[in-house]
Amino acid sequence: MAVSERIRNLPVSSIRKLIPISNATKARGVKVYHLNIGDPDIRTPQVMLDALRNWSNPVIKYAPSQGTPEFLKACLSYYHKLGFEFLETSDIITTVGASEAMTFAFLAITGVDDEILTFEPFYSNYSVVAGTTGIKLVAVPTTLQNGFHLPSREVIESRITPRTKAILLCNPGNPTGTVFRRDEVELLVKIAKERNLYLISDEPYREYAFDTKTVSILEFMKDSPQNLILLDSLSKRYSLCGARLGMFITRNTSLIQGVMKLAMSRLSGGIIDQAVGTKLTEVSDDYIKEVIQEYKQRRDFLYNALKSIPGVDLPIPEGAFYVMVSLPVRDADHFAKWLLEHFTDNNETVMIAPGQGFYNTPGVGMNQVRIAYVLNISDLKRSVELLRKGLEQYSKVQAKL
Amino acid sequence: MAVSERIRNLPVSSIRKLIPISNATKARGVKVYHLNIGDPDIRTPQVMLDALRNWSNPVIKYAPSQGTPEFLKACLSYYHKLGFEFLETSDIITTVGASEAMTFAFLAITGVDDEILTFEPFYSNYSVVAGTTGIKLVAVPTTLQNGFHLPSREVIESRITPRTKAILLCNPGNPTGTVFRRDEVELLVKIAKERNLYLISDEPYREYAFDTKTVSILEFMKDSPQNLILLDSLSKRYSLCGARLGMFITRNTSLIQGVMKLAMSRLSGGIIDQAVGTKLTEVSDDYIKEVIQEYKQRRDFLYNALKSIPGVDLPIPEGAFYVMVSLPVRDADHFAKWLLEHFTDNNETVMIAPGQGFYNTPGVGMNQVRIAYVLNISDLKRSVELLRKGLEQYSKVQAKL
Repeated sequence: MAVSERIRNLPVSSIRKLIPISNATKARGVKVYHLNIGDPDIRTPQVMLDALRNWSNPVIKYAPSQGTPEFLKACLSYYHKLGFEFLETSDIITTVGASEAMTFAFLAITGVDDEILTFEPFYSNYSVVAGTTGIKLVAVPTTLQNGFHLPSREVIESRITPRTKAILLCNPGNPTGTVFRRDEVELLVKIAKERNLYLISDEPYREYAFDTKTVSILEFMKDSPQNLILLDSLSKRYSLCGARLGMFITRNTSLIQGVMKLAMSRLSGGIIDQAVGTKLTEVSDDYIKEVIQEYKQRRDFLYNALKSIPGVDLPIPEGAFYVMVSLPVRDADHFAKWLLEHFTDNNETVMIAPGQGFYNTPGVGMNQVRIAYVLNISDLKRSVELLRKGLEQYSKVQAKL
Repeated sequence: MAVSERIRNLPVSSIRKLIPISNATKARGVKVYHLNIGDPDIRTPQVMLDALRNWSNPVIKYAPSQGTPEFLKACLSYYHKLGFEFLETSDIITTVGASEAMTFAFLAITGVDDEILTFEPFYSNYSVVAGTTGIKLVAVPTTLQNGFHLPSREVIESRITPRTKAILLCNPGNPTGTVFRRDEVELLVKIAKERNLYLISDEPYREYAFDTKTVSILEFMKDSPQNLILLDSLSKRYSLCGARLGMFITRNTSLIQGVMKLAMSRLSGGIIDQAVGTKLTEVSDDYIKEVIQEYKQRRDFLYNALKSIPGVDLPIPEGAFYVMVSLPVRDADHFAKWLLEHFTDNNETVMIAPGQGFYNTPGVGMNQVRIAYVLNISDLKRSVELLRKGLEQYSKVQAKL
């Protein structure tokens, strides 16, 4: 009995596909430093952990499909505090992570074989959601030399076809760390309005912009309520990856009603997770400030440390906690496996996410990797050292390939 | 900006679509008894609630996409205890409720425009999952007079086309309460094998079979590993609806690998919910026994109370905690709304799920409703009294329509 073609053709997450190999590495007693996945090591706010301790409902019932009133209200207060006071709870549907919000968005604005534009390199799960919803993800190229910022209006518009339904931006960018400038976000809003497209902005890393402020799509939502969709998540902001708390936000009422049907079909998000998320109103401003400061220090350290390795190139990552790095290797996928299978230094090695999985265009990104800096500085230091030593040894291996 | 055709065409959950009306009813100060939704009132096992109190990890990290090792092990021990010792953790992918397991199943075994057979009346969310995955749900009729048991092999096979990929059974049945006999399940296994189809068995109500034991598809999985898929959930078994804990189970290794891609694409289920679910190994046998006993008493009470209302017909519900009831009304949808908008008795009313949403065939089930008996007996008693009084008054309203 066969598996369906649509699933057979799905790419395996390039972030997670090396996990069985790294598990084998660990089983051999080798310590693996993870630069491959954006699972923060930062402590979840105590007031959120306390919500678990204080759980008092003796029956764990369904949450309303839109989200519990308390959680919706807490989300709203977060956006109001950011200055977006026009938002109402009826503009928000809470989701099981931003992943579910993404699936809802794709289903609600496209038909099978429609197209969504995004910027390459892009978050690899976009491909999987495109595959499961039957749409084509069209990649507009950006370059490492240009810090993965947007290309010209002409290049972007040249990819629009009659089947294009939306433009999808991740800001700050995963996997690039790019924080898009105001003129870039404005350009996309303009194109979306003029060409009658949706603009989807995926902003789980909003706070993690180290040199400028993130220009949220919410800044344009008051005036352009029809075209704009925000995908959001509490995962990275409060170290809540394992509490599946995302949001789908639009002021387009027919769209929110359509997405509500999808939310109803899966009955409910996690009511315990929502009780945890509700506590965001009680998280001190210092928590976020300290986390941003911590990531900025790691960013600065990582950028300088990587830059000092011969043959390694990267733009300065402006936000999120990722960076795309080009390495002096022909095939970063082979190198990443080799690090896990054949390299150790003092019984330790390092795991990176091969860059190709973040590109649609064949052959592009072969020598790039995504690095997530969600380790403390001492672990980051050791990870970069392992990468440097690995590259040295691998250059001899590669010469023989 | 329009919503996509696939979402526009989705049915709204007939279970949840009256909720805005019932909210308005409650806002007027009227008490509403809910016979419309299967959200149990039974206390969650204390040992599971204690898992929240005892949560000790300071970072709420992603769970592995397949599920935490602890939760997978607990699920496995549950099946082993039932006697299915051949099952291994590699046969299980934990999901965000059985709803997600259903979506994974549909995506993994069908292409767009393929068909899945199911038995009418069926759980209304099957239609929504069919709509979002682009497949056609083909309904094989069953009748109230026959207790919603399967029709003949000929009738079932007459609905199979070259596009049919699977047969989907809910056992014990939602919305019918039917517990399928061994010969019925065997027949479906046989048809699936002979016609090269998958057989998906949706069994969240496994324990709730009051007169016989549920014949799980697991009984056939050892010998027919290729064709069989089990969808399961902890929601109803342990009153954990709001902890989204489902399972996709098959011994077909290429299928499990395909579904693993889907699981990876949404990164992780809820790690807190999984810690709660892990405690199932510590739930005493008495807990389940007492819950079954409680539902059996409610079933007995409800069956007799409904039977005593003139013009009301229903089969004896054999399991789950639902029953499809035919009422002396022309349009149960209109009646259900009328109960919420125009009827009160002592400032109270009752909410029921109109039957039509559980049927695909136009015009069938118009006078039926689904009743969920997840209220205690004193509330059930009052609910049935409200239904009886409502029917009396409505007969005069209907005469004038």
